[in-house]
Amino acid sequence: MTLRFNMKSPSKRSQTLDKLRSAIQEMILDREWNQVSVQDIAQHANVSIGTFYNYFDSKDTALMDVRKVLSDVLFRDLDLLLTTHQEIDKRLTLLVKYFISLTMNKPKWASYLYGGNSFGERLEGGISKALKAILIEGVSKRVFRVNDIDITTEFIESGLFFIIRNRYLTKQPLDEDFMNEVANICLNSVGIQVENISELSLMSCPVTPLTPLPISTLAIAYDDMEFV
Amino acid sequence: MTLRFNMKSPSKRSQTLDKLRSAIQEMILDREWNQVSVQDIAQHANVSIGTFYNYFDSKDTALMDVRKVLSDVLFRDLDLLLTTHQEIDKRLTLLVKYFISLTMNKPKWASYLYGGNSFGERLEGGISKALKAILIEGVSKRVFRVNDIDITTEFIESGLFFIIRNRYLTKQPLDEDFMNEVANICLNSVGIQVENISELSLMSCPVTPLTPLPISTLAIAYDDMEFV
Repeated sequence: MTLRFNMKSPSKRSQTLDKLRSAIQEMILDREWNQVSVQDIAQHANVSIGTFYNYFDSKDTALMDVRKVLSDVLFRDLDLLLTTHQEIDKRLTLLVKYFISLTMNKPKWASYLYGGNSFGERLEGGISKALKAILIEGVSKRVFRVNDIDITTEFIESGLFFIIRNRYLTKQPLDEDFMNEVANICLNSVGIQVENISELSLMSCPVTPLTPLPISTLAIAYDDMEFV
Repeated sequence: MTLRFNMKSPSKRSQTLDKLRSAIQEMILDREWNQVSVQDIAQHANVSIGTFYNYFDSKDTALMDVRKVLSDVLFRDLDLLLTTHQEIDKRLTLLVKYFISLTMNKPKWASYLYGGNSFGERLEGGISKALKAILIEGVSKRVFRVNDIDITTEFIESGLFFIIRNRYLTKQPLDEDFMNEVANICLNSVGIQVENISELSLMSCPVTPLTPLPISTLAIAYDDMEFV
């Protein structure tokens, strides 16, 4: 549910919070987080250090807040993509390809995601919630052949993260071929029938309209209102 | 090839190098490597800082040296285990189970391996050399169904590392059940025929005679000589 508010003047508090959130995003994209100080953030957002502490207890609380905001945006984008297909094996393929497509097409998001050491560091809960839901459905429909859903989720999440991050950090090509190969391995690892894998892994993944970073939470609020 | 040397008195240089290597192993098992100084190592080995620099250019060169020594010991142990089976699918199963068995049964090795952020940080070349050789053979024998061997190697290496490390760090049980489930996923991910997976994944993995840490390189040299 989206609450309508006065578009002409978001409250002073919302505006300041938004300035801080944008500054945090810019700084985390720009350098190592452990080299960013509260003073840097305040300066970048053009507010006092005291003002910063009116909103956040610490630098790390601030990052958790921004992570929550960005996770909501990303998972909403991913969910919209996933609803374009009913078949559970196609949805798994799309989920895998989504993160490679994002790395190819959204450089600032890629820099944000792979600045961490796991999906969970930069996305609240990592990708395991989305992945696990798909695995549960695939197993119950007998499309996947998975014994232990939790272990399989963790295995795919880690494998996927590092395989993409290594390519990204070493500036190796992230292209259609790579995407198809990674989809192939993930489909294999949930035990999908061999005759279905090659067709599935070639399935194309559209580039989604994911908003570029840094994201203004005020802009997101306005976006929501368009759908009211 | 092992060169015979005078067993009664290893040279002074070998003895000092061995003391330094043992001290490095003890310190890396005991605390974060970035909190260890050259002074700490020298003190622990009971030599002067000047002596340390007669053997190593820096703290990190010293760690690389020890990593090489430990990698050789571990891979020799693993290779001996793998030669107990001819079938390539059984060898993959053993390789996967080996690292879980080691985590369960060799606490100091576990602490050494999972103190890093990848197998490659603590084992020279990671486990990809061993894994890739198995994948190449499995594909050429048409037992595995893998498109891209490099990507699959990297995927399994990352998935395996993090799935074990997470269990280990969160003190969840590393038992036979876990071992079988992880083997199941890895076998799935190389596309082994479904009817073979359940039997394979139940295959038992013996505890190997891997020498406990810290390892003395002089003792290893003596061990080698027994085979001469």
